Amino acid sequence: MPIYKAPVDEVLFLLDDVFHIERYNNLPGFADATPDLIEAVLAEAAKFCEEVLTPLNRVGDKEGCRRHNDGSVTTPTGFKDAYKRLTAGGWIGTSAPAEFGGQGLPMAVTQAIGEFLCSANVAFAMYPGLAQGAAAAIFAHGSAEQKALYLPKLVAGEWTGTMNLTEPQCGTDLGLVRTRAAPQADGSHKITGTKIFISAGEHDLAENIIHLVLARIDGAPEGTKGISLFVVPKFLPTKDGASGARNAVTCGSIEEKMGIHGNSTCVMNYDGATGWLVGEENRGLNAMFTMMNEARLAVGVQGLALSEVAYQNAAGYAKERLAGRALTGAKFEDKPADPIIVHPDVRRMLMSMRAFNEAARALVLWTALRSDVAHRSGDAKERQAADDHMGLMTPVIKGVLTDQGFANTVMAQQIFGGHGYIAEHGMEQFVRDARIAMIYEGANGIQALDLVGRKLPRDGGRALQAFFAEVSAYIKEHGSDATLAPYVKPLTQALGELQQATMWFVQNALGNPDNAGAGSTDYMHLFGLVALGYMWCRIAEAAKARVAAGGDGTVERTNARLATGRFFAERLLPAATLHLARIKAGAASTMALPAEAF
Amino acid sequence: MPIYKAPVDEVLFLLDDVFHIERYNNLPGFADATPDLIEAVLAEAAKFCEEVLTPLNRVGDKEGCRRHNDGSVTTPTGFKDAYKRLTAGGWIGTSAPAEFGGQGLPMAVTQAIGEFLCSANVAFAMYPGLAQGAAAAIFAHGSAEQKALYLPKLVAGEWTGTMNLTEPQCGTDLGLVRTRAAPQADGSHKITGTKIFISAGEHDLAENIIHLVLARIDGAPEGTKGISLFVVPKFLPTKDGASGARNAVTCGSIEEKMGIHGNSTCVMNYDGATGWLVGEENRGLNAMFTMMNEARLAVGVQGLALSEVAYQNAAGYAKERLAGRALTGAKFEDKPADPIIVHPDVRRMLMSMRAFNEAARALVLWTALRSDVAHRSGDAKERQAADDHMGLMTPVIKGVLTDQGFANTVMAQQIFGGHGYIAEHGMEQFVRDARIAMIYEGANGIQALDLVGRKLPRDGGRALQAFFAEVSAYIKEHGSDATLAPYVKPLTQALGELQQATMWFVQNALGNPDNAGAGSTDYMHLFGLVALGYMWCRIAEAAKARVAAGGDGTVERTNARLATGRFFAERLLPAATLHLARIKAGAASTMALPAEAF
Repeated sequence: MPIYKAPVDEVLFLLDDVFHIERYNNLPGFADATPDLIEAVLAEAAKFCEEVLTPLNRVGDKEGCRRHNDGSVTTPTGFKDAYKRLTAGGWIGTSAPAEFGGQGLPMAVTQAIGEFLCSANVAFAMYPGLAQGAAAAIFAHGSAEQKALYLPKLVAGEWTGTMNLTEPQCGTDLGLVRTRAAPQADGSHKITGTKIFISAGEHDLAENIIHLVLARIDGAPEGTKGISLFVVPKFLPTKDGASGARNAVTCGSIEEKMGIHGNSTCVMNYDGATGWLVGEENRGLNAMFTMMNEARLAVGVQGLALSEVAYQNAAGYAKERLAGRALTGAKFEDKPADPIIVHPDVRRMLMSMRAFNEAARALVLWTALRSDVAHRSGDAKERQAADDHMGLMTPVIKGVLTDQGFANTVMAQQIFGGHGYIAEHGMEQFVRDARIAMIYEGANGIQALDLVGRKLPRDGGRALQAFFAEVSAYIKEHGSDATLAPYVKPLTQALGELQQATMWFVQNALGNPDNAGAGSTDYMHLFGLVALGYMWCRIAEAAKARVAAGGDGTVERTNARLATGRFFAERLLPAATLHLARIKAGAASTMALPAEAF
Repeated sequence: MPIYKAPVDEVLFLLDDVFHIERYNNLPGFADATPDLIEAVLAEAAKFCEEVLTPLNRVGDKEGCRRHNDGSVTTPTGFKDAYKRLTAGGWIGTSAPAEFGGQGLPMAVTQAIGEFLCSANVAFAMYPGLAQGAAAAIFAHGSAEQKALYLPKLVAGEWTGTMNLTEPQCGTDLGLVRTRAAPQADGSHKITGTKIFISAGEHDLAENIIHLVLARIDGAPEGTKGISLFVVPKFLPTKDGASGARNAVTCGSIEEKMGIHGNSTCVMNYDGATGWLVGEENRGLNAMFTMMNEARLAVGVQGLALSEVAYQNAAGYAKERLAGRALTGAKFEDKPADPIIVHPDVRRMLMSMRAFNEAARALVLWTALRSDVAHRSGDAKERQAADDHMGLMTPVIKGVLTDQGFANTVMAQQIFGGHGYIAEHGMEQFVRDARIAMIYEGANGIQALDLVGRKLPRDGGRALQAFFAEVSAYIKEHGSDATLAPYVKPLTQALGELQQATMWFVQNALGNPDNAGAGSTDYMHLFGLVALGYMWCRIAEAAKARVAAGGDGTVERTNARLATGRFFAERLLPAATLHLARIKAGAASTMALPAEAF
């Protein structure tokens, strides 16, 4: 049975010492979120995740969701009760506006809680996660009436939500959507079509499910410019906001899949179901992207979350499992063998994971703080800069954190040897559960293209230049600090390589866009390394300040951070050079073969 | 349903054009193995794998093996019939000596067939694979009587075999084995203990199962020097070689595991079972290692095999699935979208897989040819050189081919998007099945330690020097050939980096062995890149010779090889530099933290 301990202290260190959350107190809601309050909220969330959700993780994997002949779906044993406790605790609306029943806490707090939830039980966490996503889309694009009708229910978790994009013939390329929407006299639409891979499409946790559905209004233009967004509730809300008549949307089957068995991944059939337009006609993709950007950050967090819990279990096992002797001589003469944590190759894996996890968490919280600026600041220029940051970092966080998060679950599994391959220890479940995060909400290749093809050139490269300027300014400010040199110097090189790669695209991709496409995934990972390397500088700086302040009982932890940061700089950051070499190789050999040769 | 087409032409190209198998005709059995015969044998094996085993692959995954209350185990539907056809075809004994019923064909042919079998159905292929392994151990270490009794049955596949090493408290560290062997008056031993993770431990495919078991004879020294090897048949053979009385060895349970569900992974209980010593008392590890070296090569082949079949399916899907338009403009205006193979990032993944597969197959066949020299040559010096090669390459092939093979199944799955995550297309099964190969027969971290700690220093570095000399001589000979420069030049750099890494160990690991341990996995992969890069030079050289010979209808295929080799040199080989940088970082940051900090 896997163990999990939510990293509350890590989050507090990042929010307080690294990012100085008190500096954001001018934003609405922040001043109320005192350090004590945040600590109490995180501790409470940690308790819930550790005690309620963690024990249900293997249950969910083993039992999966069951669809009955009437189309209803039963979630695994214990999920219903856990969901009731989740909603009772108000955990879905931690950052939602107070007017809709939320607590208005900083998004960074919600993202931290999201990490805890996903570490404990990612299949379960998707149910409230999709409610949050649906709420975000309706908040941004819904009418006042729709907001009043749906948001309080979604925020409270009485109702959950779904995102209906994919159809059998189209996933990435939403221009191929065929689901139709026929306008009705009363202003509603009749929705008809089949959607696949719908997470939380049908279940027994909430009294209603609010489907957000992409469909094509009869007569709309072809392609992406003819797609509209609809809200299609499982039960049609009555005038007083209760769940009314059953709508013509049903779960046709549950997909048999590699992991996240506790979440119901449904084929949803719309047979003239009643729906209402959200936002403008034919502007559905725009509206959906609001939802997807939030969702992409949340999926990046899933990668981190599974890496963290897999790491914790691997570290625990490595301290207990006995095999062989340390290369430098037996460490535990009294035992028949040393614990495997004495072996450098086991350490290498553990250090690789923690060096990623700590910086990835920083990147998420930093970006979450910027998202609050983007949404809550009174200063338009500040909002724009924060929004630029979000747009730039969304594909990086989604792509890099899920690729590396998955790789880390594989690494953690490896530390268990044969015991990692059998179900008992739960390690192989982390691998299977983590795998989907590289695929959904835009496969990682799409994230890389989004970064290179859209986010880099947008507004004359404004977002990228701002990021370069910030990191460069940091390097300039701290470049002469000898104690920070082990972190700043390697970052300087990696930043230079990222800038070279960017310049190479500018010079070579205009003439042949395949040169950008062939290097896009490497660019995304190079970008991720620079962002994580920058996070390590910030962490090291704060850690040194803590050591200097002295004697608060955290010196050992702080020294551990400094060593872990050095490991990152020495072992992980140098991959930047490899990514640059691959980018500069260009598209020639990648595209050399005719399709028939494959 | 996944497809599979065995790469017969690739194997023939490698054997004939690249490695000139006819030059080995002085070895016993080789002259009889004419090109026509080899082609016919491979074609027949291909047909069996494609038509019989491939369709059973998902069946095996879905049904798994079932243990009944009496301890018997039923394999998935169709396995029994397929096994009967396998033995009828003589596919287990293709390289076994004729005196025991084998065909005496080159080991390279058997390894090629092994790849086909594992691509088609790796869980099934393990049953005959373990029979081959048991036969190899008895052939090398058994008495004349044991050979006469067991080998004909194992070679024919009437009986299968198992390897019983692991116990609950020990896997890698076999010095901790607790299973006991009590000597009996008749020269036999009574074996008592529990073994876990025993592949093919119990099943219904063959009439008898021959367990090779590590145990400690009463009073034997502690640790690895007190381990002996025993043969413990499920049914005690009668004097005339039939299966007689049931022995006291039973399957206690079947492990619930991530993949290879079609193979029964058993807990085996030995309750005073009758066994006979194989080889010398207390020299069991030695004997078992004979079996394990063969098995390690076979496991490396599993990595290649799953990479190959996953690649084939991904390539097929990429040519059919429509999404988006080529960055350079629509390629199929008449279709609603272009097939995704037009996208450079999809190409990058496909090319990465095939650039690995073709060179990995070459490395396997080259090493298999050397294994025949090691076993069959009349020249002692030749045998020694070939044996050196085998010892050096075994951990590289096992570690690198399974790490990269697994990574490639993940990459192939990614090309399918969401469809890769559901069971239907079989892609997620390849990932789950490939994962075990990084773990069993010595986890890959152990392979890396075997390479760095044992194989490098052995005999004053003789094996390594011979490999360096061969590659250096090749570079010297072809360095001025401009047409080969795209392959030879990058190899020259990578070889230099491998030599630097070796030198770094010499200078830094004697004082602190952790410096070797912390760099061992990177060293193994650096070594693998050089070996694969060398294979690409040999392939490119042969491909150019074919193009020069002209007009045989294979020019397109040959040009494809040349382009794929360039991709390897430009995109994969540069990772050598990263591995060297990591090695040179040493153990300091890796080992900095106290164990309690994890």
